Amino acid sequence: MTADLPRQVRLVDVGPRDGLQNESQPIAVADKVRLVDDLTDAGLRYIEVGSFVSPRWVPQMAGSAEVFAAITRRPGVTYAALTPNLKGFEAALAAGVREVAVFAAASEAFSQKNINCSIADSLARFAPLMEVARAEGIRVRGYVSCVLGCPYEGQIAPEQVAWVARELRQMGCYEVSLGDTIGTGTAGSTRRLIETVARDVPREQLAGHFHDTYGQALANIHASLLEGISVFDSSVAGLGGCPYAKGATGNVATEDVLYLLDGMGIETGVSMPKLVAAGQRISRVLGRKNGSRVARALLARG
Amino acid sequence: MTADLPRQVRLVDVGPRDGLQNESQPIAVADKVRLVDDLTDAGLRYIEVGSFVSPRWVPQMAGSAEVFAAITRRPGVTYAALTPNLKGFEAALAAGVREVAVFAAASEAFSQKNINCSIADSLARFAPLMEVARAEGIRVRGYVSCVLGCPYEGQIAPEQVAWVARELRQMGCYEVSLGDTIGTGTAGSTRRLIETVARDVPREQLAGHFHDTYGQALANIHASLLEGISVFDSSVAGLGGCPYAKGATGNVATEDVLYLLDGMGIETGVSMPKLVAAGQRISRVLGRKNGSRVARALLARG
Repeated sequence: MTADLPRQVRLVDVGPRDGLQNESQPIAVADKVRLVDDLTDAGLRYIEVGSFVSPRWVPQMAGSAEVFAAITRRPGVTYAALTPNLKGFEAALAAGVREVAVFAAASEAFSQKNINCSIADSLARFAPLMEVARAEGIRVRGYVSCVLGCPYEGQIAPEQVAWVARELRQMGCYEVSLGDTIGTGTAGSTRRLIETVARDVPREQLAGHFHDTYGQALANIHASLLEGISVFDSSVAGLGGCPYAKGATGNVATEDVLYLLDGMGIETGVSMPKLVAAGQRISRVLGRKNGSRVARALLARG
Repeated sequence: MTADLPRQVRLVDVGPRDGLQNESQPIAVADKVRLVDDLTDAGLRYIEVGSFVSPRWVPQMAGSAEVFAAITRRPGVTYAALTPNLKGFEAALAAGVREVAVFAAASEAFSQKNINCSIADSLARFAPLMEVARAEGIRVRGYVSCVLGCPYEGQIAPEQVAWVARELRQMGCYEVSLGDTIGTGTAGSTRRLIETVARDVPREQLAGHFHDTYGQALANIHASLLEGISVFDSSVAGLGGCPYAKGATGNVATEDVLYLLDGMGIETGVSMPKLVAAGQRISRVLGRKNGSRVARALLARG
């Protein structure tokens, strides 16, 4: 455990990408643009706007180029895109994207089932992308999935996660986000994970990405803060994590994380009322229940 | 913050009392008995079985004497009742109850609105009860409500909570449970609260009672563990805290707390599969959605 809590935290809102991608219905470009603009207005400094993948695989992400063209960019705010390969990366570049994210799994079985290749092969495939990114001055963020459990393998050794995180960093990722994809992690396993990974990747270059499937996300974030982690991914209104659907991904809601951080006196620059309004608006558009407990409680209080 | 995490935690399941009391429909005595027996079987060592209050005020608690008469008591397990006054206490005694709980608010406004008297008066009213309890060798646990916020007053000073906790202890309560009745507390305010109250009441005599209305309960419990608290109240299946009803009390689900503790390697003696089965059974009886995220996730996994 480190001595001091971070004074500031950067919240990475993955709602427009990771969130909407896992909602069942397609969403109009105008609604995505409005969501991103609302998040900008709420004070988010990092928004994952979309992804450049084949619409054959992820139809919800069709139109990412149009979204990037239409959003109102505020200086100091990062608007990122997920790019699984060089082709996607080039499409992102053409759409004016200046920061991208790549991903790998910490579980061999998950890697095979999800992207049909080994972890090592998936990392190797990013090499050409990383090269062009370096030449173009584009920053690349890395995601590691299944860091605290895999639906196929069960437990994942922290050393395995450390290896993937180290590889991503050596390839040029400036930050590695550790994803508890199935939400089975606890404060105990989170702490052990960070202590192991931090031997290879400095804590300032690590982010936490927790899913709330087992209700543990905020406890895990609290444990991570005590371990010196100061960047967290979350999804406004818990987008993508509808608790009523089987197989829901269960992104922790940005509002719930913000409530925790506000209560600990940790700065984020994000306005709770504006964030709640943004989440409520997109929830209405989707005809879904707002997935943030904080939003529901604040809205019920009136 | 204290140096070491507790090795063991005592979970106090308040589902049969605090939980069922806040469900909308009345529950048959046989269903209550089955719930208490299921919790005993799951390894809970402290179960709040019912309360001895006027059924005019809390109709859901009618039949507590019948429940106490019918449950199967296991040695080493405490079966407690809430007793608001001497009359209730005597009824509890007659029903064979050997441990009771009394309660006071940390908020003057809440005390006035809820029990129609000042905090000091409410404490004074317990004096005759405490006297008889001492004479009869009955242990008394104290609850303080609104410790991290009040629906009428807003913020509550930790010093005010410390005063009420100290009074309860001086009157003879062997343990004081600090209740975040409206769930607005965060890891930050929880920590400050415990550090203040612990100046007057030793940490070993404090318990945490968190509501999950804002999704903060597990983060607050994690913060409490780091402050050396080792007793937590919770409610199987989140009984009493249906997240879909306005004004829900939002008890944190015992399953969710157990998952956190199991993951931290902290002993409780409670079996997760048996606990999940107990919660699922009573949820079916009530025709309500299981309020535990862990239970829902484990049951969906099959």
